[in-house]
Amino acid sequence: MRNDKIIRRLLQYRTCLERFKKIGFEQVYSYNLGKEAGVSAEQVRKDFSRFSIHGNKKAGYQIDDLLEMLNKTFGKHEAKKVFIVGMGNIGRALLSYKGFLGKKIEIVAGFDIDPSKLKKREGVQLFHLDELKTMTEQTNVNIAIIAVPDSQAQRVCDMLVVCGIKGIMNFAPIVLKVPENVFVTNINLSNELESLVYYVNEDESV
Amino acid sequence: MRNDKIIRRLLQYRTCLERFKKIGFEQVYSYNLGKEAGVSAEQVRKDFSRFSIHGNKKAGYQIDDLLEMLNKTFGKHEAKKVFIVGMGNIGRALLSYKGFLGKKIEIVAGFDIDPSKLKKREGVQLFHLDELKTMTEQTNVNIAIIAVPDSQAQRVCDMLVVCGIKGIMNFAPIVLKVPENVFVTNINLSNELESLVYYVNEDESV
Repeated sequence: MRNDKIIRRLLQYRTCLERFKKIGFEQVYSYNLGKEAGVSAEQVRKDFSRFSIHGNKKAGYQIDDLLEMLNKTFGKHEAKKVFIVGMGNIGRALLSYKGFLGKKIEIVAGFDIDPSKLKKREGVQLFHLDELKTMTEQTNVNIAIIAVPDSQAQRVCDMLVVCGIKGIMNFAPIVLKVPENVFVTNINLSNELESLVYYVNEDESV
Repeated sequence: MRNDKIIRRLLQYRTCLERFKKIGFEQVYSYNLGKEAGVSAEQVRKDFSRFSIHGNKKAGYQIDDLLEMLNKTFGKHEAKKVFIVGMGNIGRALLSYKGFLGKKIEIVAGFDIDPSKLKKREGVQLFHLDELKTMTEQTNVNIAIIAVPDSQAQRVCDMLVVCGIKGIMNFAPIVLKVPENVFVTNINLSNELESLVYYVNEDESV
């Protein structure tokens, strides 16, 4: 299953279901879950039926059943160890990002080329970028976050790939060139904001 | 034109074209731009033809022509003023995020409910959340970033909507409920990383 959209929806369902459970619900209808996740009830039913999970008309789905399946799907890979390259504002913020804790995502090390930025932070060891190869070998980390200026991003990306990194979350506003077996997800904050500005203003000018 | 995907592609083209121009190129083929932006050459041609811009077989497109159109499309709305609510790690990082500067995105004010976090930072005035209404009226800002814990995000969102905010970039891992005329873009960092982990591990287990 390499369909990007279904993966995102499943992760979104999990987020919603965890909230429902916290509130005290035990059952959920595809309609409620869809509304919360921002998709149609039909889509919810379709997605879960792929995993042979079917709700019933009266009671809907058991939240625990759905969470068990989702956690099995996404939790079976124990290693969620991550490197961050670039100890600027974004990189430093991610070092201590609380949202990662609940998902058992562990920032194993941070890297930069500026020695003045390499003081230990938030309990995470920081290294010069030259140590990347050694650290990858020592830790078996295969996921990294790129939070360096765009002029450096491709160079850093190439280094990561050489070191065996297979998944990259990229905050630099460029499209990285990677081999086919390396996955990249781009977070382009400026573009996200600019598209918002565009929608809001277009809407007002209608 | 309210198609999310084309807006994102156009912004991506602009990012690539600005880079090409910086390097010294004056012309570009749909093939090159497509490769850089991660889409097909056909898609590039289709997108630009919507704006009645057509390349020619010999020389491709004039980069300046494309940039002029894109800047007209996205730059005509002068106001790119933004509030940030939540002065935790992410909110503080965004206050000084250099990627916004080049796009003329201006962080006008930051808000939090914790008075100890309200010292002026990076030249941006910080206010208690109670000041949101007053500040919105004074500044006419209609875009805001939510960077508060997920338990607070819907409440903050409701406040923003009441104050007249029309576009929200949301870092909290929940789906916000908003009226139809309010646009939300979600940045769920944990889910992005988890989907990467999933892809990488699925790929390795094949």
